[in-house]
Amino acid sequence: MSTAVASLPATAPDSGVLDLGTLPLEGGCELPELRLAWRSWGRLNAAGDNAVLICHALTGDAEAASWWAPLFGPGRALDPQRDFILCSNALGGCRGSSGPTSTAPNGQAWGGRFPAISLRDQVEAQRRLADAFGIRAIRLVLGGSMGALQALEWAAADVRVQAFASVAGSARHSAWCLAWNEAQRQAIEADPEFRGGAYAPERPPRAGLAAARAIAMATYRSAASLEQRFGRDDGAARFGERAAAPDDFAVRNWLRHHGRALNARFDANSYLRLLDALDSHDVGRDRGGVEAALARIRVPALVVSIPGDQLYVPADQYQLAEGLASAELAVLPSAHGHDGFLLDAERLEPLLRRFRQRLGQ
Amino acid sequence: MSTAVASLPATAPDSGVLDLGTLPLEGGCELPELRLAWRSWGRLNAAGDNAVLICHALTGDAEAASWWAPLFGPGRALDPQRDFILCSNALGGCRGSSGPTSTAPNGQAWGGRFPAISLRDQVEAQRRLADAFGIRAIRLVLGGSMGALQALEWAAADVRVQAFASVAGSARHSAWCLAWNEAQRQAIEADPEFRGGAYAPERPPRAGLAAARAIAMATYRSAASLEQRFGRDDGAARFGERAAAPDDFAVRNWLRHHGRALNARFDANSYLRLLDALDSHDVGRDRGGVEAALARIRVPALVVSIPGDQLYVPADQYQLAEGLASAELAVLPSAHGHDGFLLDAERLEPLLRRFRQRLGQ
Repeated sequence: MSTAVASLPATAPDSGVLDLGTLPLEGGCELPELRLAWRSWGRLNAAGDNAVLICHALTGDAEAASWWAPLFGPGRALDPQRDFILCSNALGGCRGSSGPTSTAPNGQAWGGRFPAISLRDQVEAQRRLADAFGIRAIRLVLGGSMGALQALEWAAADVRVQAFASVAGSARHSAWCLAWNEAQRQAIEADPEFRGGAYAPERPPRAGLAAARAIAMATYRSAASLEQRFGRDDGAARFGERAAAPDDFAVRNWLRHHGRALNARFDANSYLRLLDALDSHDVGRDRGGVEAALARIRVPALVVSIPGDQLYVPADQYQLAEGLASAELAVLPSAHGHDGFLLDAERLEPLLRRFRQRLGQ
Repeated sequence: MSTAVASLPATAPDSGVLDLGTLPLEGGCELPELRLAWRSWGRLNAAGDNAVLICHALTGDAEAASWWAPLFGPGRALDPQRDFILCSNALGGCRGSSGPTSTAPNGQAWGGRFPAISLRDQVEAQRRLADAFGIRAIRLVLGGSMGALQALEWAAADVRVQAFASVAGSARHSAWCLAWNEAQRQAIEADPEFRGGAYAPERPPRAGLAAARAIAMATYRSAASLEQRFGRDDGAARFGERAAAPDDFAVRNWLRHHGRALNARFDANSYLRLLDALDSHDVGRDRGGVEAALARIRVPALVVSIPGDQLYVPADQYQLAEGLASAELAVLPSAHGHDGFLLDAERLEPLLRRFRQRLGQ
């Protein structure tokens, strides 16, 4: 366990930003002045053993009770009256933690100079945060998508973890996922405003980030879910009318909306660093391979698979569940594809709740 | 049937470019000086009734015997000793037919000024070509992907068609396919060199077209096929080494290679026009809807579905086969996903051959 470099006041607030010292990165260099923005619900007990950690997805943030609201509440999977629930913005993100939009030691924003980070670096930063809070046992680490990868990495890296839940994740980032991230990377880098990452904050590569988001949004859904939502009526407009108003194609509007929305809340350099972190995911690296690494994880695991997931395909979860020493495979029935881990959180809640009940949590 | 505006010499060559007059476009304007580049195999008989038409895919060309080689030959599905086989570069393409790289009436290349075209415009152009050749009956129209959409449109539009084969296609471009095309469109338009389509031929939007190709290539394959080809060994390099040489991720190299390769042979404006044509595909438009339009097509149809197709998903082919009056649904077993229509052409050949045998062709 790392040494805590920060100390919290006796009565901790339920959100903040913690300075966590210098973080040696897997890539070789050191990140000075690691800071993580965090949010908590409930209270850490005196023994420090009622912690639950939530890891967010690619463009998420520490506000887990907003984006995973159905999981929270009395009697639910995550109960602040029982658990001390902690979520932090990932290293490399842009919602308060160290990342391209945070301030470098020279007083200016890091921007494209922010170093490459791995998924393990992100978990190591979170471990520092847990140290700072005095957490001595973690009842559950859970996450979906990028958060699912981090939850697994937590279980492989830290003996404090007593159980974990990986929702729509994998043991190692697949060639398929690598391909989609590469397409997004190329889209961002094709935008002239990107300038090799050295863009001014007021002139970001909006078109490139929007294109990347369009790619991502499609991978987060499925053919069936888009058809259900956007399938054209038989009474569709004539081609000529469409050509004059191509936005009659509702799915295009939807993708453009998501591009604009992401531009309003996310930074392109941060997005690229997080893509790199995702691509680095491989629980077996330096651990003798995936099979050996999974077999060494003895704590109970819940592996949640979404049948229509087009990104982290079910084969990813099957490999994970088969390889772990003590895993339950659960199916989250969602018509939304990968995004089901968010959009169908009310169906995810009982899966998590019952898993914890079986563990006596 | 349109009136032929071109006449061929008595002994026709087996490739060429034909002037086909002015083409009224579905969008409302007229394209002057329609030209189609074509290639043929075998001889049209005196009755003009032994024609077989091949329609190519998005970035294809008239050289069908190259990209669909396993289908051609004595005793095979396409036999030049029996059939007069004709393939042409699609309207809007950039391999010799009218499109953004062809010459406009003012003597300069059309570039981004080339009008929007629909899939029906492409088929109408092909009908003009068939007229020019004196084709009076078409034994079979076949195509994969974009070509599959055109084959269906042929059957709906022209009484000369006696049978058709749609490989990995649909009755109407799905919201899913629209989404992928929109992502590609955004990637191209995000490249500053695109300049709203008004780029100089020597300064095309290479990065944008490469990003679009990366998106497309992923949709043409599947998670399983990429994992099989690019799955990382357990002895993979350390993260630090990877960060220094990210091209260790073989799938990224593969996507970049395909980006460069497409840039070497394709024009971005042409690509965009073809995306628009794909998006316009709806056999039911102005025909009372998909169901009514399909039911009116009485000729025998072979609908080929690839189980792992991530782009034109099997549900597309099921809708097509169920709706047609006389369709056989056939499965092309391919590990490659959508690209199986090309990469596993040797498995497609017997499906097509036996279909024709059953029809007495």
